[in-house]
Amino acid sequence: MAGLAVAARAFSASASAGAGGVAMVQGASRGIGLEFVRQLLRRSDQGRVVATCRAPASAAELQKLKEEHAPGRLTVLPLDVTDESTIEAAAASIGETHGSLDLLINSTGILSIPNVIQPETTLSKVQKSSLLLAYEVNAVGPILVIKHMWPLLKVGGRSETGRGFSLVANMSARVSSIGDNGLGGWHSYRASKTALNQLTKTASVELGRKDNIACILLHPGTVDTDLSRPFQRNVPKDKLFTRDFSVQKLLSIIDNVKKSDNGKFFAWDGQEIPW
Amino acid sequence: MAGLAVAARAFSASASAGAGGVAMVQGASRGIGLEFVRQLLRRSDQGRVVATCRAPASAAELQKLKEEHAPGRLTVLPLDVTDESTIEAAAASIGETHGSLDLLINSTGILSIPNVIQPETTLSKVQKSSLLLAYEVNAVGPILVIKHMWPLLKVGGRSETGRGFSLVANMSARVSSIGDNGLGGWHSYRASKTALNQLTKTASVELGRKDNIACILLHPGTVDTDLSRPFQRNVPKDKLFTRDFSVQKLLSIIDNVKKSDNGKFFAWDGQEIPW
Repeated sequence: MAGLAVAARAFSASASAGAGGVAMVQGASRGIGLEFVRQLLRRSDQGRVVATCRAPASAAELQKLKEEHAPGRLTVLPLDVTDESTIEAAAASIGETHGSLDLLINSTGILSIPNVIQPETTLSKVQKSSLLLAYEVNAVGPILVIKHMWPLLKVGGRSETGRGFSLVANMSARVSSIGDNGLGGWHSYRASKTALNQLTKTASVELGRKDNIACILLHPGTVDTDLSRPFQRNVPKDKLFTRDFSVQKLLSIIDNVKKSDNGKFFAWDGQEIPW
Repeated sequence: MAGLAVAARAFSASASAGAGGVAMVQGASRGIGLEFVRQLLRRSDQGRVVATCRAPASAAELQKLKEEHAPGRLTVLPLDVTDESTIEAAAASIGETHGSLDLLINSTGILSIPNVIQPETTLSKVQKSSLLLAYEVNAVGPILVIKHMWPLLKVGGRSETGRGFSLVANMSARVSSIGDNGLGGWHSYRASKTALNQLTKTASVELGRKDNIACILLHPGTVDTDLSRPFQRNVPKDKLFTRDFSVQKLLSIIDNVKKSDNGKFFAWDGQEIPW
């Protein structure tokens, strides 16, 4: 019922959304998410961005971006994908302030935290706690965000973004591909992102049929971020992308995606990745 | 360390495993699991079967099968896939009694429980609790069972089963296929079984490389069991299989599988299912 109330508000406010549309980046305090916010703000002087992270007050880079841009262009909201009430609260806040969403980028991801979770090198190191934590953050979190942003996406996609439909872009990873899995290992991360692929595909069927919304999955390449840092040793230098390069490539896919691409999984270079 | 101890015991005992081999059916108190036990016992007068379920004492059908067959042919052990200590205890017990495993069939699965979990008809009904519960039972459980049975599987596959390698067969479902998902819905079940596919593929890479073990995934068709009963209304009569028919077909796949099929996903009719 809360979702429906947000939808009604959103609909009445969407006419005033203005040029450039409203983009939400979930998981924006660092890494690829932060770079999405930076480039989305840079590419237009009108588009508005909602950046979410667990602790806005300590997200120094986001606060700096906010100061550098005109009032209202960047909103920073608290959102913890493991706490659904914060997702609901963010949806209500965006509904009040912006009325709609044209683009939702889910960019959170967990791979390793010292003493908590590590990519498994063998089945004998697989722990239930790691499997469940990775699933909660990488798969459950993003699908709950789509669930609660759906009413806002439903009334988005009509502003002058040129796309003509709202778009959800979920950050996946090539290691989520079952068909492409020749190395093994990384059980918790792989399985969580594979599940994210299935959940995104499942959502894309319903949202694409009932509403003017498309959902896609993206593989950013191996990008120089906190997430990949402990695992960069074996990555050839020309395969380790800067955040700037990767996000430019991903935004190019986001800009050129067609409604008929609904439910697809693209690498940074635009190539489709097999499931 | 517990796993290594089991392996050492298993190795010394494997020579006495005898004709027909040792098969374990996890999730055997009803449905497809129970039928696997019944048919495995019926097809040879020597093969030994370990059936696991949460509460052996109240598994009337298993106890009846035990009485109907010669002493030692069927062992019934407690195992709850959501409690890893019971998996470890079952592995230790099988190590003591049988010393090795030639075949492991993971047959547990959760789809619906009144007032607890229901297949979702829309994204707006997706609940975090359902996503996590389905994942824990359908994906985490089977992979933890493989983890703890690995030392026993490692020394199996040498008895007169004719196969020449140990086999893990995990029960998946066609709805886990991302590529085949044109209908949407059933988010929790789909995602958990898709993750099981990835976890099985990941394990197959390591077990197939390090040991003489293959892992496959099976789709039993829509079978007349407690699991499917609430959802049989729209299934054409000739597409609703008896347990007897489905398990006959699945055992035929299990009998004829080659080491080079390691990591593949087969339907009841032997056709490979796309990821």
